[in-house]
Parts: sequence; structure tokens; C-alpha cells
Amino acid sequence: MDMWLHTANGQVNLRVSRQLYTVQSEYQTIEIFESPEYGRLLVLDGDVIFSRSDEFIYNEMVVHVPMAVHPHVKKVLIIGGGDGGVARELTAYADIEEIHIVEPDQVFVEACKTYFPETAQSFDDPRVQLIHRDGLRYLRGRQGEYDLIISDSTDPFGHTAGLFTKEFYGSCYRALREDGILVYQHGSPFFDEDETAFRSMHRKVYHSFPISRVYQAHIPTCPSGYWMFGFASKQYHPVTDCNPQRWQARNIKTWYYTTNLHRGAFMLPKYVEDLLKEAEAK
Amino acid sequence: MDMWLHTANGQVNLRVSRQLYTVQSEYQTIEIFESPEYGRLLVLDGDVIFSRSDEFIYNEMVVHVPMAVHPHVKKVLIIGGGDGGVARELTAYADIEEIHIVEPDQVFVEACKTYFPETAQSFDDPRVQLIHRDGLRYLRGRQGEYDLIISDSTDPFGHTAGLFTKEFYGSCYRALREDGILVYQHGSPFFDEDETAFRSMHRKVYHSFPISRVYQAHIPTCPSGYWMFGFASKQYHPVTDCNPQRWQARNIKTWYYTTNLHRGAFMLPKYVEDLLKEAEAK
Repeated sequence: MDMWLHTANGQVNLRVSRQLYTVQSEYQTIEIFESPEYGRLLVLDGDVIFSRSDEFIYNEMVVHVPMAVHPHVKKVLIIGGGDGGVARELTAYADIEEIHIVEPDQVFVEACKTYFPETAQSFDDPRVQLIHRDGLRYLRGRQGEYDLIISDSTDPFGHTAGLFTKEFYGSCYRALREDGILVYQHGSPFFDEDETAFRSMHRKVYHSFPISRVYQAHIPTCPSGYWMFGFASKQYHPVTDCNPQRWQARNIKTWYYTTNLHRGAFMLPKYVEDLLKEAEAK
Repeated sequence: MDMWLHTANGQVNLRVSRQLYTVQSEYQTIEIFESPEYGRLLVLDGDVIFSRSDEFIYNEMVVHVPMAVHPHVKKVLIIGGGDGGVARELTAYADIEEIHIVEPDQVFVEACKTYFPETAQSFDDPRVQLIHRDGLRYLRGRQGEYDLIISDSTDPFGHTAGLFTKEFYGSCYRALREDGILVYQHGSPFFDEDETAFRSMHRKVYHSFPISRVYQAHIPTCPSGYWMFGFASKQYHPVTDCNPQRWQARNIKTWYYTTNLHRGAFMLPKYVEDLLKEAEAK
């Protein structure tokens, strides 16, 4: 018998065939379903976070875009990322030496190890270190330590709200080396009710980093199927400093990312460009 | 009370608050709903065709992409298009002289006039001529008549199946002038079950036209939120022959299209590039 999964805001509606797991951790409600259309599905506090059939799009886009730009990434920090998917993409780069995952929720990590071994496999890589702490607290006081920070947190509500504040972006700036890059998820701009959060996020980052650009991907299980990422940087421009030859020489297998798509991801619809310009003017 | 609209294949699931209209025409079942998330919604034979909140994306992308490439479009044929949305975008171009809409279903046109006046307004333009005929029959025998053909038909099943055959693309080729362009909807490539139709469509067009490229847009109410269009052409290349200055000088108001996004729309995910290459090799 079919069941339906509807997010509270009505934006995401999927068919599910059965629930595999549910638990209330210290931080959130964790649920795992099987979906006939999208395969295994992770749901946190009622929001669809990723599915087996489309997690590759998100994970490739937050990793390969900065990695094709920054010429020498050695040390990476992932804020959140307890499913291991972002780290999995990073481990494909032989010259990365350390990957720190700061994920407070140990129960979440264990659930992913059991139900999503294809993302959690990255925890077996000796360069990956899992730190069970709050992201914002971990960042405070750190200086010039990371080449790349990827903020892989859920929405700006609940226990991750601190990861969308001016203080958070400022702490990331300080924790990055002098040519560091921050990539963060920027939400979906399509629905009117999400516009305010979208503008506010861009305004904060725009005033915290010398270079800040937004890029897009098509992710079917995200609200409206359209998702944005932020690229904030101290030195490198996401398009003019992208080096296709260098990246292609690494021979990394992808299903979504190409260096050509990389450029196109920064070519945005007019309504999104307008939202960003309005935020920058304030 | 909320009701849910689920397409038979499980790919599109939306909340609807009420049904405004339903009729069985000679060609199809036509239903119109109100949706809290997407506004007024058109459903044909159980498939969501467009909503008030996102029709601008589809209509802008099938019109402005070829119009920014072709330097002198005077006469346009729309196959299908009974809602008037494609014609509305075309009427913004002062130098277009004739717009022929070949839409067999008169009941559908009347429903759109009543429930979607913002798209059907184009029927009032004196350059727009509505022809109630089958698209394939209309095309047969026509030669060198149109600068631009836009195939705005529903899926390759049911009464519109003839609009996705080798004969159809060949007829379009003949009906176009020596530098004509055909734009057609290419479906969504995300779900495995749609892959075969996607490949087959590209293979037919690739062998019918000297230039054939596929481009993308994010359309929330389409399956997986991701939709593709085909650009088939006798002379003009969709990217290298795009003229941003000429298009911008026309001062046409858009919400989605820009000449920058135009270029990015042809930069595709790797899995889509792979599908197209496989189709071309056969």
C-alpha cells in the first residue's frame, strides 16, 4: 500500500512504500523510508534531506566546484555532513590530507552507517576524522586553519539555526587560510515564502567575504527541484579561476559535474539574479 | 480540506485545494485545479501541464532561445500551444508578422480563455491565427514556409504521439525556410523509465537536422523539476550564433531568460551528456 510523505510547508510530496527506521535523537527526529521513485530516503524533522537516487548531485556540486578552483587544498572542514556523502567526494582527491567532519549528532551518523553505506563508506578513509561537536562552537577561535570549509547543514531552523548567522560566516572567514573558500547551501529561491531567508543569507555572506557568488543545481527531492549553493572566497573567483585542464587531469568519476556544467551553474535565471542584486544593495 | 494530485507514474505529486473545471473533450480529459503552492494548475489526461506560478519558465525558454539566435523571424508555427502562452511571448517581438497556432482541441482553447486569461490574451493579437487541425496533417506537404516552428505538445503518448515520430521531425524540416529553427520539448531525463524515450527522440532529430542540441530549464511542476528542450536547426548554432546585444536591444521583459542563462542552459549534467552521446552513436 502506498503512503505519502508531505513536508509541512507542502513543498515536497513523495510516495513512500515503507518506513525502515525512526528515532528521536538529542538533536532531531530521524526517519528513513523506501520510495518507489527515489529509492531510500532520509528525512530529518519532517524534511526530505536526500535520496539514494539524487544525493550524487548535491555531493558532487559542493565538492567539485571549489576543488576545480582552489589549486592546493590540503585540509577541509565539513560542518554537518554526518551521512559522509560530502567526505566521500573529497576522498577522491589524493592530495587532500585531512578531512574534519564536525557533526554533533552521533545517532544520525550511526543510522547512516547502517542505511546509507554508500555515503558512510568515507568514514573508513584514514584522512577522515569525525568530531562530535556543535559546528559554531568548534569554529570559534580557530584561525587560518582550513583551505576549504563546506557547510553541509540542514535548514536555518531548529538546532542548526546558528549555522546561518553573521557570526557563523565571520567565524568561517577567520578559520580559513588566506586563500580559503567556503561553500554553503543557499536554499531554494522559487517559493515566495523562502525569498526572505534567501536574501538575508546572501546579504550576510556578501558583507563577510570579498568574493561571493551563488550557483545552482537541479536536485529532484529538494523543494521545487531547484537548489542553490553559495561560493564565498578570499581570493579565487569561482568562474575565472576555475581550471578545467587541471581538474580533468585528476580523472575523477562523476555523474553530474563537468567543468563545462561548472560555468553554466553560475548563469542564473533573471528572478534569482534580481533577488541577489536587491540583497547586495542593502 | 487538502486533496492530493498524484500522476499515474508517481513522478508529480501536488497539493490541490479545489477543482475548478473538468471536461472530457474529443481529444483528452481537461482538469483545472487550484494549488496552494503553485496557483492555478492545468491537468491533461492526469498529467500536470503547467501552473500559473511557473508557466513563465517554459514559455520564455521555448521562445527567447531561438529568437536570440535567428536574426529575422517573420513567420512562426506553434504545434499545440492552445493555452496561448508560447504565442504571448512571441507577440513581444514587433518584427514577427504571423503566428500560426495549430491546436486541434477547441474545448481546450475555450477552457484556457476562461481560466488562464494571462496566457490566452495572445489570441487577441491580430498576428495570431488559430487553426483547429491535427499538427502532423497540417505540416504534410508544406515547404519552406516558416522561420521558426515550436512544437508545444504534451507527452509522446495518446493523441499527440504522432508529434514525436521521425516523420514529424522530417515534416518540420521541410516546412522550415532554408535557415529555419525547430524547438521542441524533450522531456525529463532523470527517471530511468523516461530514458528510452529521451534517447529515441534525440536520435530521430539528430539524423533529421544538421544542427541539434538539447537545453535545460528548472520547471517545478515538471517531473523531477527538470525539463529539457530540443533545438534543431538548418544553419544557426544555438550558442555561437546567439547575439546578446541584438536581443538585449529589444528590451523584452523576462523573469527567467537572460542571454547569459541562454549559454548556461546548454551546459548539461554529465549523465545527460552521456545519454545524448549514446543516442548519437546509434
